[in-house]
Amino acid sequence: MGAPPGYRPSAWVHLLHQLPRADFQLRPVPSAFAPQEREYQQALLLVAALAGLGLGLSLIFIAVYLIRFCCCRPPEPPGAKSPPPGGGCVTWNCIAALLVGCAGIGVGFYGNSETSDGVSQLSSALLHANHTLTAIDHLVLEMVERLNEAVRTELTTLEEVLTQRTELVAAARGARRQAETVAQQLQGLAFWRGVPLSPLQVAEDVSFVEEYRWLAYVLLLLLELLVCLFTLLGLARQSKWLVIVMTVMSLLVLVLSWGSMGLEAATAVGLSDFCSSPDSYILNLTQEETGLGSDILNYYFLCNQAVSNPFQQRLTLSQRALANIHSQLQGLEREAVPQFPSAQKPVLSLEETLNVTEGNFHQLVALLHCRGLHKDYGSALRGLCEDTLEGLLFLLLFSLLSAGALATVLCSLPRAWALFPPSDDYEDTDDDDPFNPQESKRFVQWQSSI
Amino acid sequence: MGAPPGYRPSAWVHLLHQLPRADFQLRPVPSAFAPQEREYQQALLLVAALAGLGLGLSLIFIAVYLIRFCCCRPPEPPGAKSPPPGGGCVTWNCIAALLVGCAGIGVGFYGNSETSDGVSQLSSALLHANHTLTAIDHLVLEMVERLNEAVRTELTTLEEVLTQRTELVAAARGARRQAETVAQQLQGLAFWRGVPLSPLQVAEDVSFVEEYRWLAYVLLLLLELLVCLFTLLGLARQSKWLVIVMTVMSLLVLVLSWGSMGLEAATAVGLSDFCSSPDSYILNLTQEETGLGSDILNYYFLCNQAVSNPFQQRLTLSQRALANIHSQLQGLEREAVPQFPSAQKPVLSLEETLNVTEGNFHQLVALLHCRGLHKDYGSALRGLCEDTLEGLLFLLLFSLLSAGALATVLCSLPRAWALFPPSDDYEDTDDDDPFNPQESKRFVQWQSSI
Repeated sequence: MGAPPGYRPSAWVHLLHQLPRADFQLRPVPSAFAPQEREYQQALLLVAALAGLGLGLSLIFIAVYLIRFCCCRPPEPPGAKSPPPGGGCVTWNCIAALLVGCAGIGVGFYGNSETSDGVSQLSSALLHANHTLTAIDHLVLEMVERLNEAVRTELTTLEEVLTQRTELVAAARGARRQAETVAQQLQGLAFWRGVPLSPLQVAEDVSFVEEYRWLAYVLLLLLELLVCLFTLLGLARQSKWLVIVMTVMSLLVLVLSWGSMGLEAATAVGLSDFCSSPDSYILNLTQEETGLGSDILNYYFLCNQAVSNPFQQRLTLSQRALANIHSQLQGLEREAVPQFPSAQKPVLSLEETLNVTEGNFHQLVALLHCRGLHKDYGSALRGLCEDTLEGLLFLLLFSLLSAGALATVLCSLPRAWALFPPSDDYEDTDDDDPFNPQESKRFVQWQSSI
Repeated sequence: MGAPPGYRPSAWVHLLHQLPRADFQLRPVPSAFAPQEREYQQALLLVAALAGLGLGLSLIFIAVYLIRFCCCRPPEPPGAKSPPPGGGCVTWNCIAALLVGCAGIGVGFYGNSETSDGVSQLSSALLHANHTLTAIDHLVLEMVERLNEAVRTELTTLEEVLTQRTELVAAARGARRQAETVAQQLQGLAFWRGVPLSPLQVAEDVSFVEEYRWLAYVLLLLLELLVCLFTLLGLARQSKWLVIVMTVMSLLVLVLSWGSMGLEAATAVGLSDFCSSPDSYILNLTQEETGLGSDILNYYFLCNQAVSNPFQQRLTLSQRALANIHSQLQGLEREAVPQFPSAQKPVLSLEETLNVTEGNFHQLVALLHCRGLHKDYGSALRGLCEDTLEGLLFLLLFSLLSAGALATVLCSLPRAWALFPPSDDYEDTDDDDPFNPQESKRFVQWQSSI
């Protein structure tokens, strides 16, 4: 009945969280999220380094494959000028790899947008929490000022008017004491006043970083898309210079893909550790940053029936004091106003103030209740641990697909390139038809061989 | 300070909302959302019918193009057996159109997922609102039961114990009266009890429909993807039967694309009308469905400082009565317990009940405050009017791209097919190389022409 069902770690979080971690000496590291500890940092760096290892291995593989292809070709029988068998297979391979790369790019765009959605959910939750916290501050300030104003003006006027009747003066003084009690209790409720941590600032920082991350990925994806399309074009038109440029670009994008894969893997692993039990880490961090009591933080971060409202007593005392002011004002209205008509105006004005304060008090109770802020916390966690993590996994899939596709393309392109006709023949080809570019070349070859 | 910044209609909503609408007699129809009015329904149907018109026009265009191609071909010069010039251009056209179609499919997957996100945001907001409403009901029930139980047992015991001292009995009776007042006021706060509308049911219905819509689009997208890939394959391998099957499938997918475009356009236009000023429509609808007072609905749907809390008076009365019970119990504890030790137990038990009730009361104030439910309302609107509308526009773009691409494919395929070698020659082609399939055929043609 307290808080609605909140954040639950997803299956991906559990899966990633259960992967073993090790530091640089390959000693196992516990998978609890502890970004300030050297071992944990080393474990994440090691995850990122795995991508570097992958890059190195794939570069070695490509180099070995191409060297073997260049140096260990079986000697061509003299007079056989037709391309070696398997040339079509190489081109098909290359095209299939480029199609896989394009599918990967689609996955990457989706993952990038999903990650961005998650982060924007996080920052909008932070903005909402900031709104609640500043609203509490403003409301308390407004209520306290209104009460102090009432004490200074109407209650003072009332005491002056009723100065002849000591018991009525006592009632007015009682109301003044109660109003002062309320103001004092309320001031204790503005718990976020003077706290150095601003959710607004955090949200702005997060959005700023995310904007550049998003842009960097979009540029990488577009670069890879261009490389895929121009490679296809180069193959179709058998343009040697285009294929050479695209081979170099593919190498560049291969390095970028493995680099982004390292970053994504390390981030996803770290995020899964954070997301498997975020409460304790966030509680400690917020306590350090804000210096707030653990009762308040527990109340907002856990928000279940086991944690009592830390403002309960202050709220109850304020509420009772407000009720007492009301009964004293009613007494004064009954007793004093018939005798002292000039008391009517301040009493009515005080009742008006009391009504407004009671309305504001209900709003304050609603703002202070853990429900709203806990919902923001749950929404921020869901954004980070569901959407963002899912997006990161899609980006990881994109990087994997594009690394595989580009490695295949890099192996195939030089072989396909070797099958192209020499450039002087090429000038003659009818390169309009993508499925029929080699006709003229072979025709010439055939002519010379008869 | 009241509610956080909520839903604002987006630029897309304004744009779509400003498009002119007309009924079947082409008389202008106001663009206010009124799905129950015949003119408005006709306007939406007319928007959907535009897609039917588009389908008809594109089918006519394709038919005219193909008939002109088949019947009005320039007579071939005798002996010229080589394919007519422009054959390569036709194949290139077809491939470019298929690539555009594939890009459209990517856009469609994104739009489908975005639409689905928006709808799931809507249903999770409904679930959250349902949780709040049932929590209010349960909390009120629990508090009333607790108070009635206290009145039945502890207060009765207390009156029996204190029966010798009439002024103490009067105090206990006063507490009983106040407790009864609180219970009575509280019962008026469970405003959702007996309301026939269940947000849970609405959320389930919405999710159910959305599940099938999502699945239907995924199937359509996969069908189009398969058509694109197999058409490419058919072109590359010059397989006549595959190209014929894919021509028929393309025609089917073209019809489906235009159909989905009609649905999307009508839904997007209707949604933009709804989203340009949702408050009044939703207010009227909810009032009809629930029979709740307009003060309550205005409070929750508008939730600004101009609308006062309709529960303010009940809450204030309950709060004062609780404070009175507290002061009467304190009086009893001071006066009665020293004289009647057996009164201590019921008095302490009553104070305990009072404390719990005050805690619950603060929770009830928080639940009843418009902030929580209004946030759900805003979140539901943002899901529907931002994510879902954006997703629909992406789906519209997908339908447009695929309709254009498929029309081009349908125009090109029969021309490309006419360029294929006869199937008996085809058996001999080296169809391993996607860029060299026509070699053997042309070679044979060349042989026969010399």
